[in-house]
Amino acid sequence: MPSLSHVDTHGEARMVDVSSKPLLLREAVASGHVLMSPATLDLVESNQISKGNVLATARLAGIIAAKKTSDIIPLCHPLNLTHCDLDLVIPPSRDRIHITATARVTAGTGVEMEALTAVAVAALTLYDMCKAVDKSMVISGVHLASKTKKPIPA
Amino acid sequence: MPSLSHVDTHGEARMVDVSSKPLLLREAVASGHVLMSPATLDLVESNQISKGNVLATARLAGIIAAKKTSDIIPLCHPLNLTHCDLDLVIPPSRDRIHITATARVTAGTGVEMEALTAVAVAALTLYDMCKAVDKSMVISGVHLASKTKKPIPA
Amino acid sequence: MPSLSHVDTHGEARMVDVSSKPLLLREAVASGHVLMSPATLDLVESNQISKGNVLATARLAGIIAAKKTSDIIPLCHPLNLTHCDLDLVIPPSRDRIHITATARVTAGTGVEMEALTAVAVAALTLYDMCKAVDKSMVISGVHLASKTKKPIPA
Amino acid sequence: MPSLSHVDTHGEARMVDVSSKPLLLREAVASGHVLMSPATLDLVESNQISKGNVLATARLAGIIAAKKTSDIIPLCHPLNLTHCDLDLVIPPSRDRIHITATARVTAGTGVEMEALTAVAVAALTLYDMCKAVDKSMVISGVHLASKTKKPIPA
Amino acid sequence: MPSLSHVDTHGEARMVDVSSKPLLLREAVASGHVLMSPATLDLVESNQISKGNVLATARLAGIIAAKKTSDIIPLCHPLNLTHCDLDLVIPPSRDRIHITATARVTAGTGVEMEALTAVAVAALTLYDMCKAVDKSMVISGVHLASKTKKPIPA
Amino acid sequence: MPSLSHVDTHGEARMVDVSSKPLLLREAVASGHVLMSPATLDLVESNQISKGNVLATARLAGIIAAKKTSDIIPLCHPLNLTHCDLDLVIPPSRDRIHITATARVTAGTGVEMEALTAVAVAALTLYDMCKAVDKSMVISGVHLASKTKKPIPA
Repeated sequence: MPSLSHVDTHGEARMVDVSSKPLLLREAVASGHVLMSPATLDLVESNQISKGNVLATARLAGIIAAKKTSDIIPLCHPLNLTHCDLDLVIPPSRDRIHITATARVTAGTGVEMEALTAVAVAALTLYDMCKAVDKSMVISGVHLASKTKKPIPA
Repeated sequence: MPSLSHVDTHGEARMVDVSSKPLLLREAVASGHVLMSPATLDLVESNQISKGNVLATARLAGIIAAKKTSDIIPLCHPLNLTHCDLDLVIPPSRDRIHITATARVTAGTGVEMEALTAVAVAALTLYDMCKAVDKSMVISGVHLASKTKKPIPA
Repeated sequence: MPSLSHVDTHGEARMVDVSSKPLLLREAVASGHVLMSPATLDLVESNQISKGNVLATARLAGIIAAKKTSDIIPLCHPLNLTHCDLDLVIPPSRDRIHITATARVTAGTGVEMEALTAVAVAALTLYDMCKAVDKSMVISGVHLASKTKKPIPA
Repeated sequence: MPSLSHVDTHGEARMVDVSSKPLLLREAVASGHVLMSPATLDLVESNQISKGNVLATARLAGIIAAKKTSDIIPLCHPLNLTHCDLDLVIPPSRDRIHITATARVTAGTGVEMEALTAVAVAALTLYDMCKAVDKSMVISGVHLASKTKKPIPA
Repeated sequence: MPSLSHVDTHGEARMVDVSSKPLLLREAVASGHVLMSPATLDLVESNQISKGNVLATARLAGIIAAKKTSDIIPLCHPLNLTHCDLDLVIPPSRDRIHITATARVTAGTGVEMEALTAVAVAALTLYDMCKAVDKSMVISGVHLASKTKKPIPA
Repeated sequence: MPSLSHVDTHGEARMVDVSSKPLLLREAVASGHVLMSPATLDLVESNQISKGNVLATARLAGIIAAKKTSDIIPLCHPLNLTHCDLDLVIPPSRDRIHITATARVTAGTGVEMEALTAVAVAALTLYDMCKAVDKSMVISGVHLASKTKKPIPA
């Protein structure tokens, strides 16, 4: 039977010991979306076309947050993130902004929380920037899309 | 026609000027949930009954994050949060953990981002603590439930 | 004879006591520039025309840094910044990017360090983003342009 | 019977609600010491006489930490500290460095944790700087010396 | 004669250069205690039995602080902590809570400051959570219990 | 033709992927200065002679800032800095304080931003400490002096 890796034998929260896990190239991709009205999306997009800063600010907020994931999530290990990229897209349904984040590191533990934190903080930043014109936004579908690891090239 | 309050006349991201807004008692309530399997919820709950630390860790993570919202969300104003409370509940549907966060402050600007950040970070923390046993979790429904303001009592 | 306000009677570094200073609306404006080659400016500017993100990233970095000035400068008081705005301009001389930052707060102490920190960090961010193509950049002329205070409107 | 103010009716950790507490001038004084060998004290002191930087670094570390107490202690409220001062003394017993910290703020809640955090971090910094020459140091006696509040002068 | 490793030849504070030190598996254990009244311990413990959150909050605060030791202690090197665990015990003497912290890393420098910071911040958090009912607490006996290093397994 | 390494093919700000860059011993040296009046320098220097804390505080501020460069500069990679040293000198011209910072790391990417951030923050700290007596200071000449890399010794 599986057990919760972050809870020790006495039920106390703990940081998983990764001291002896091998260094591997690790990548995680997460995604999610912010549901908003078409009118809000029009405003975001027209600004996007001229200067692009609502989406640019959310992207940057996601990158910055990914770098400090271990300061935001109590039991995450500090990692020296080697890459983080975010992609923000308005799909044809025109009811949301879809966010995808990719994180990479060479470490003994994975970067799924870094990718998920990037998505969540980019979503919160979109919310913050659009909340004056749209009171009905919802952040949803935040999940891990993929997670891979491979040896460090010799 | 409404405009995006965080984008200035040249389309650049900016911090809204709240220098001359009156100090009011402001409260915001946000909520959201993490969808997870009944088996995962059983593990969380049995720990909850004995020591309660998965939910306790997520609650604390939400409070800590609410206090540093302005360090996480680029255009949020720094605020001296006077209260933050989180409530985590497993509803009868037994398919999710529902999170509600309440934030309060006496300030010239509201605390909806503090409440939303608390919910999002509590959700990410639940995800982090349960990810070893459940690969299909999804964070959804993160939204503002209410926002109020009233004068400071004389 | 003037004395250094941050050094106490025994010569030790100290935080100036502002406990009994009146709350006033305070504003500071600082400016500075990053000298770079015309070829680098062309690259920045063509990106600026299409998506504007080098300058947008530096602006945002300046705002974010202004909010955490008291975490960067050891003897600065924590303040709840109510406004910060940055303006980045390529002057006709086409040898630099000129940065101006305005910071505002209602507090017992001024915001000159917030404005100066915003300029310095925006300049460092420009440097970081352009350093792969220009090895000869110099950050110069960072100074306080103005500082004002006035009573809080009744 | 007294109850633990940080634990709510369901036993969960919580941030005390200070939303409606009056703003007062609040001061707290804390102290503590680091026990070390006379030989270590001689080294600290001879440096102190010529350049004074072991003690100066510890003082500054205490001030910096006091400013971010709410980021270090999970349930502490963020406060805009208006003053923090540390005093480090080698008493005639020559077996310790004694640390006293004073913190002040105008707020709805007290600053005892800021004063205590300043003492603890100054002590840790002394430990860090002297640990190469003294393996037997102990940080002890960290406590609150006094706590006062008074109305804001009209 | 030994010298203070953090003070350079001119007496200025400095960060020790560990650029060429070998990567080793390093562990440090620190401990300390918070003296408090039996009545306070009863309150902590009855909560501990039902939900355990005073001790759980202090444990988590210690882990979080260990991860940001280099941001709290001025001359500590940033490290990617691979493990941190805290143990809080009420001894038979029933006059204190005893705290032990273990930290591990694979790095060129040790983790004694991480273990000591975890103990000190867990102690401060206990103090913060109990200060409403006990004005006489004292944090004492914070010291390094052990420090080991060994080669990385091939 | 060179391109801006931090801007992706769609013109969006991005973090450069250094996942597969080799670990090397990297060093960067940056310098800059703060122009100030001879009278201010006299005050700094007389304090420097007795206790040396204006310069000591600026040095320490530079070291602390270098360690958190990736938290200050949005697209900088987190690095575990292994060394940072600052040198502050008043040259015979007696019109400025000259700052030099050296940073070292074993990483896949360089530390020029760490060295530059150390210089800039030391300069801002000098400004902060002297601003009460000198309204005409200017931070200038902040640039990269050298950058080297070499293999890790076997």
